[in-house]
Amino acid sequence: MLASVSLYGSSAQTEELFSETVRNQWFWGNALNPLDRRTSLTFDRSGTYLINGRKSFCSGAIDSDMLIVSAIRSADDKFMVAAMPSNRPGIRILDDWDAMGQRQTDSGTVEFCDVAAGQQEFLKTPGPLGSIRASLRSCIAQLILSNIFLGIAEGALEESRNYTLAQTRPWIASTAQSATADPYILANYGNFFINLQAAQALTDVAGESLQRAWESGDAITENQRGKCALDVAASKVIANNAGLEITNRMFEVMGARAAAGPARIDRYWRNLRTHTLHDPIDYKVRELGDWALNHQLPKPSFYS
Amino acid sequence: MLASVSLYGSSAQTEELFSETVRNQWFWGNALNPLDRRTSLTFDRSGTYLINGRKSFCSGAIDSDMLIVSAIRSADDKFMVAAMPSNRPGIRILDDWDAMGQRQTDSGTVEFCDVAAGQQEFLKTPGPLGSIRASLRSCIAQLILSNIFLGIAEGALEESRNYTLAQTRPWIASTAQSATADPYILANYGNFFINLQAAQALTDVAGESLQRAWESGDAITENQRGKCALDVAASKVIANNAGLEITNRMFEVMGARAAAGPARIDRYWRNLRTHTLHDPIDYKVRELGDWALNHQLPKPSFYS
Amino acid sequence: MLASVSLYGSSAQTEELFSETVRNQWFWGNALNPLDRRTSLTFDRSGTYLINGRKSFCSGAIDSDMLIVSAIRSADDKFMVAAMPSNRPGIRILDDWDAMGQRQTDSGTVEFCDVAAGQQEFLKTPGPLGSIRASLRSCIAQLILSNIFLGIAEGALEESRNYTLAQTRPWIASTAQSATADPYILANYGNFFINLQAAQALTDVAGESLQRAWESGDAITENQRGKCALDVAASKVIANNAGLEITNRMFEVMGARAAAGPARIDRYWRNLRTHTLHDPIDYKVRELGDWALNHQLPKPSFYS
Amino acid sequence: MLASVSLYGSSAQTEELFSETVRNQWFWGNALNPLDRRTSLTFDRSGTYLINGRKSFCSGAIDSDMLIVSAIRSADDKFMVAAMPSNRPGIRILDDWDAMGQRQTDSGTVEFCDVAAGQQEFLKTPGPLGSIRASLRSCIAQLILSNIFLGIAEGALEESRNYTLAQTRPWIASTAQSATADPYILANYGNFFINLQAAQALTDVAGESLQRAWESGDAITENQRGKCALDVAASKVIANNAGLEITNRMFEVMGARAAAGPARIDRYWRNLRTHTLHDPIDYKVRELGDWALNHQLPKPSFYS
Repeated sequence: MLASVSLYGSSAQTEELFSETVRNQWFWGNALNPLDRRTSLTFDRSGTYLINGRKSFCSGAIDSDMLIVSAIRSADDKFMVAAMPSNRPGIRILDDWDAMGQRQTDSGTVEFCDVAAGQQEFLKTPGPLGSIRASLRSCIAQLILSNIFLGIAEGALEESRNYTLAQTRPWIASTAQSATADPYILANYGNFFINLQAAQALTDVAGESLQRAWESGDAITENQRGKCALDVAASKVIANNAGLEITNRMFEVMGARAAAGPARIDRYWRNLRTHTLHDPIDYKVRELGDWALNHQLPKPSFYS
Repeated sequence: MLASVSLYGSSAQTEELFSETVRNQWFWGNALNPLDRRTSLTFDRSGTYLINGRKSFCSGAIDSDMLIVSAIRSADDKFMVAAMPSNRPGIRILDDWDAMGQRQTDSGTVEFCDVAAGQQEFLKTPGPLGSIRASLRSCIAQLILSNIFLGIAEGALEESRNYTLAQTRPWIASTAQSATADPYILANYGNFFINLQAAQALTDVAGESLQRAWESGDAITENQRGKCALDVAASKVIANNAGLEITNRMFEVMGARAAAGPARIDRYWRNLRTHTLHDPIDYKVRELGDWALNHQLPKPSFYS
Repeated sequence: MLASVSLYGSSAQTEELFSETVRNQWFWGNALNPLDRRTSLTFDRSGTYLINGRKSFCSGAIDSDMLIVSAIRSADDKFMVAAMPSNRPGIRILDDWDAMGQRQTDSGTVEFCDVAAGQQEFLKTPGPLGSIRASLRSCIAQLILSNIFLGIAEGALEESRNYTLAQTRPWIASTAQSATADPYILANYGNFFINLQAAQALTDVAGESLQRAWESGDAITENQRGKCALDVAASKVIANNAGLEITNRMFEVMGARAAAGPARIDRYWRNLRTHTLHDPIDYKVRELGDWALNHQLPKPSFYS
Repeated sequence: MLASVSLYGSSAQTEELFSETVRNQWFWGNALNPLDRRTSLTFDRSGTYLINGRKSFCSGAIDSDMLIVSAIRSADDKFMVAAMPSNRPGIRILDDWDAMGQRQTDSGTVEFCDVAAGQQEFLKTPGPLGSIRASLRSCIAQLILSNIFLGIAEGALEESRNYTLAQTRPWIASTAQSATADPYILANYGNFFINLQAAQALTDVAGESLQRAWESGDAITENQRGKCALDVAASKVIANNAGLEITNRMFEVMGARAAAGPARIDRYWRNLRTHTLHDPIDYKVRELGDWALNHQLPKPSFYS
């Protein structure tokens, strides 16, 4: 969220909001979902902005002190983004997040009823198309996803390993004395590990690429931004694939009892499957194909 | 369960238990798990069998009228199988099934404390090695699994289809006017469908093979039984793979909202993932490889 | 080719050409490739048709007695199909087939220079859109492809098996005494076998579906024809995938020496890879997806 | 080969052979294949070593000036390695390399008939078990394989790209105006690219790991050597998989004509398939699984 402030806001806005965040230990949530166009922005008679409507997929809103809010300005259909306190009158944050995964967080609905917003609360260059630098926000958001996917996959592999070492017995048809020497269990762990190594390596590459892009400041070129987006996209696809394979198939190296009991080992798959639906993986692959074949850089958007 | 009675019991036992089942509308459960060797069978002073210990993975036990129970006879370490009322004194059926999937059924623990069992309650040829015909029980059990996998996969594809038709919107980067014309959504459905067709075809083949084997009665040969087991194994692997792919990836053709809400679409994957752990798929593949390479038929066991 | 005659020709044409084929033991080739529009059909002053131009991918033309020839009629841009002797003046069959696979056959270029064709030589309902029944030709052509793919895959598995049994030694890190007991070699054979079983089953299903469609004669409905096309498409995709996996990976179960020597075991992959490019597999999958999701039957064409 | 000299030889041997190589521009081949135990080493009456027998898979031998030769010493069954001129009397290098791929190089048979070898020609620590440092030779050999696999895959993708851009037409059922905008062609290129990125990243990681191990000199620990071997193994499996997929499936993004003509685009697959059989990929995966599950480092051998 603070990256949004830094990338979209003026330097004065950034400086003030960062200082206040540190001073007050603000936790930021969002009501930003650019695909949900149900929030509108109008002027009242006094010239104050009023926000009305609702937003879905508002991540972290429930516990937040501050919100990044987006709305479509009725006058010119412009996409506007503002930062404001979560407890402002007229804002109602619903406790309606009820997904199959990511159940320890929230990404539910926020309702706006004549919420007043001052002009100074609106960030300078809203959205990825404001400037090349502002469009890095999408790279950051996507790389956060890669890292979350990777973290879930690493956690799953670690839990799986502990389970196999402690509890799994060799199948009756196995020639091995222990499950840890079973040729198929080893093959599965080998494949899990290799794919995870690849995801880690490409996520590291993407992290370095993004760091360099960030450090370029306003001097960043379309080409550098595009290459960074490609690195991030490749890491996301690999982490998506490696993670889904591990969280889906980890049960095969633990055995039937891993499905039972209060361990809820399915939470790895449920969390990852929920998170990986953020935006379609097929269109990430397409973007990378457009580069590989046509040397076409991804067009900056909220998802690329 | 009745197949176990028919295959393991004498003709008198079969006739009586079948008649009583029809007359009383008995529901049968089991406490049979051959890998769990914690139930023992001893004689008391009066010459009655006593069963003591516990069994895990007792499917359908809670609602059952009758149980198929296995125990190791202490005298000679023989695996014995009996049919008896579920409410016999000393039997305690625990309501402890708490798995990530298959939550509308039960496969929990049954405890036995000095449970008396008459000699006539023990079936004649216990276990798959009793006779070639008796060993068909494993083929039946495995083919039931194939059909359950298939049914879950078919249900998942149907739910997915209804969802995509009714609710999914094309991704912002899609060239298609509707999600139903999106090239990647169509490709995913195509692959789901093809794999399901293959699973259905091989399960039909296996069903016919098993029917012929059943109809051979006691004249069944090792070769016919072995071929039948191979057909069943192939159907199970294909249904396992097709089902896991569909239930894992169906979310990609529905979109992010499919993870949310009370629909609990993850139940398809949770149910299938739980059930597919019954016995390791890698060893089914190995069995088929041993046939393909060495023309070695599967050795009859509780799982082959 | 004779199926084309039977489906496109009038009953008189069919009867005559079938009789002559039997009497003269004609071998038929084609110069039909509908995607190659370089052959034109014009009238000369005497009212005779003249064919000029060239066709690529003319399968079996070199050794043929009779050719099925297609050309675009200049007057109305209509796609016309005729049957004529391969040695007719003006026809020049080039020996220019030089592909990476299918090297014992030919599918090269045929040139036409003022080739005269009588009106009676043109078949009545040229092309798949002539009638529902005529459009079965594409189903036949596609199912022939499935069966060729399947045959190559079966041959590859057989050659692989003979090689492993006779020559392959266990890897130094294997716990098995012989290659035939190596867990990974068995797993590979298992997977090859399972996929081949699926391809065989779906090709059988498609064969029965096509037989019923054929036997329906002119009473065939669009729905029956469409379902038949779907069955054929599913069999083709499965046979394509199973075959490419087996012919690509069979070397891994034979070992390094399988790449050497005059055995040319790569011919399986080269033949299959060449043949599987006939029309794009991705669009077959899409067709099946359009059915699975939208219940849209494949639109009859030369490839569907 | 010179790495073998450096790792197995004494510092005096290394210094001399390196100097002479530079001065004479020697090209080195080998007759080293450790799995082929048909060369023996005996003493003649004068105390000179005599090598007799034959070796297969002698890479680069035909054009070589110098050979690295291995033989089993009859007296104690010890594996000995020597460096000697390729034209030494008694050495016969056969021109019998005839594989389906790698046809511009050679890896054929070398015969030895009473070939005299001085004691000073034998390297000090023959084989991977001589010392930790000597065992790096296997890491080098394996990483060379990764890089060859990667180079073939990169070349294939580049040839494929040039072909698609220049020649491929959109399929008749495609909604795209050009093949370069076809959704499935883009998806295929995307997947090729992503897998290649992963292979490149892991090969870079392995290269840096090996460089550090090399620079450790004799201070290298078993742990450092083991971690290096794991990095190399992961890069090899990924490059193997990415390369086989690209060289097998590249035809699908070029179209049917890519199988024809003198371009011999199948050479990428033939070269890679030949080279990837050097040692079984399944056992590389197993090694990595043994690390992932059991934290067991690969045991140094000629292949690990």
